[in-house]
Amino acid sequence: MDALLYWVGLAAVAVNALTGVLDSGRKQMDLIGALLVGVATALGGGTIRDLLLDRNVFWVADQAYLITALGTGLITFFIARALTVPPKLFLIPDAIGLALFTIVGTQVALQWHTPWLAASLMGVITGVVGGVLRDILCNDVPLVFLQGELYATAAWVGALSLIGLQEIGVPPVSAAWAAMAIVLVLRLLAMRFHITLPAFGQPKAP
Amino acid sequence: MDALLYWVGLAAVAVNALTGVLDSGRKQMDLIGALLVGVATALGGGTIRDLLLDRNVFWVADQAYLITALGTGLITFFIARALTVPPKLFLIPDAIGLALFTIVGTQVALQWHTPWLAASLMGVITGVVGGVLRDILCNDVPLVFLQGELYATAAWVGALSLIGLQEIGVPPVSAAWAAMAIVLVLRLLAMRFHITLPAFGQPKAP
Amino acid sequence: MDALLYWVGLAAVAVNALTGVLDSGRKQMDLIGALLVGVATALGGGTIRDLLLDRNVFWVADQAYLITALGTGLITFFIARALTVPPKLFLIPDAIGLALFTIVGTQVALQWHTPWLAASLMGVITGVVGGVLRDILCNDVPLVFLQGELYATAAWVGALSLIGLQEIGVPPVSAAWAAMAIVLVLRLLAMRFHITLPAFGQPKAP
Repeated sequence: MDALLYWVGLAAVAVNALTGVLDSGRKQMDLIGALLVGVATALGGGTIRDLLLDRNVFWVADQAYLITALGTGLITFFIARALTVPPKLFLIPDAIGLALFTIVGTQVALQWHTPWLAASLMGVITGVVGGVLRDILCNDVPLVFLQGELYATAAWVGALSLIGLQEIGVPPVSAAWAAMAIVLVLRLLAMRFHITLPAFGQPKAP
Repeated sequence: MDALLYWVGLAAVAVNALTGVLDSGRKQMDLIGALLVGVATALGGGTIRDLLLDRNVFWVADQAYLITALGTGLITFFIARALTVPPKLFLIPDAIGLALFTIVGTQVALQWHTPWLAASLMGVITGVVGGVLRDILCNDVPLVFLQGELYATAAWVGALSLIGLQEIGVPPVSAAWAAMAIVLVLRLLAMRFHITLPAFGQPKAP
Repeated sequence: MDALLYWVGLAAVAVNALTGVLDSGRKQMDLIGALLVGVATALGGGTIRDLLLDRNVFWVADQAYLITALGTGLITFFIARALTVPPKLFLIPDAIGLALFTIVGTQVALQWHTPWLAASLMGVITGVVGGVLRDILCNDVPLVFLQGELYATAAWVGALSLIGLQEIGVPPVSAAWAAMAIVLVLRLLAMRFHITLPAFGQPKAP
């Protein structure tokens, strides 16, 4: 389980650094601005989780995460300047990053003996805070809060599934894969079929 | 004193979750966005205080706070969709939340042996950071920083009163009630009579 | 070295409180709003560094920093209301603050046995996060991320120089002064000659 968490975590960091750098292109940032937004997107969620749990911050303890974020960000920056990247292309990596981070975050919180509801929120925080930081740094209303296809909802359902599956005795590694699949499928279905939650300000009936 | 702090803290969490959810209605958020903004408003100030003091974060250690915030947020969301809530209606709960959080935050910092000036700032942080987070997440300039009726000022005066009253020998529970009353009365008077502090950019004389 | 770090740290806090308060003048803040933005600008970078390193937060442990920030902020507020301050005047104090904070932040991280790349990023964080917080609180895209004269880049080069100089045997105090000079000179040269990094969205050749 620990080795799985480690490699899945590195993959999620790379994917999030990529989306952070791509997104910063909308705001005329320079190389270092784009890199710092990429790093904040990649490491922000896990950092907040570790601060809340009073753990050692993962990328301070192990530089591999920071090197992955910076390296991916650098490569993305130069590729994105050379090629035109259609904006839809990174919705799928973003969904994968959401699934990976949510499950890693929930699992870390459970191992730290966090009560279950707080642990599920840690998963959501790990999954979505990177993107929230990215949007705040780019001075936008964070996308995750606006009405749109399920995002934080997909993460929360996945986090609760992980906890439920382990509770009924499913082995942790299988539960983790299943819960990641739930987040990913829910997010992709929501994008495909425009599934949304009820919003404020809407009349309840037409 | 500890039992008082606990119940006052839960009440402040409920009040702040309510104002956070109501406020998120201005930005076309969906259910989960509104809930997350409500939770951030309700738990944000105390979380920053606990991180700064290196305490265990209160809502990770005790899920009652998180359940209160989520439950209040959920009820508020559905009531606010059914009824039209006049915006002025939540200025008074907001003032009560400010008073409760400021005094709880200051008292926690004092019990943690924080020097007095830093402890008073912890009270202000606990009182106002939730609202600052709410405004940042909704992409507004935080209201508390703009010129307007006393808000952070009322909190700071109350926090310093709590410290002063205890210093001159007033029993802690009486000092806490008195200081909460000071914050609340100052805030309500400021709203009623439009009391403001000097601002930048204004001529000093007409 | 410790005494040097202490006084340099206090000077950097004063300089950053000054720039924070001056900057808040653009947004019609009142006295307490300006003071809180000044305090956040002055103490924000070091606070994030201490949280990430799991150290005691410097201004909670020693009130001298908080008193310096509040005192400088108060004096700046009243001077700035009486006189018109040309905006360019505070670019040089800001550059000095950047140099001071970056080197103090890197050195603190090294003493805390942080790996070198993470330590250099701690220096950048200590140097630039105060200004990022200032811009977020004023609801602007943080200047440091936009294309412009080298800022975070100057900080990063200085932080890496400090680590490199100590690695090749230069005594810590000399290395600290040299690295501060590197940040300051790089930033001033960049402002004088409009040196920038490559940005997104620009064609690579004209």
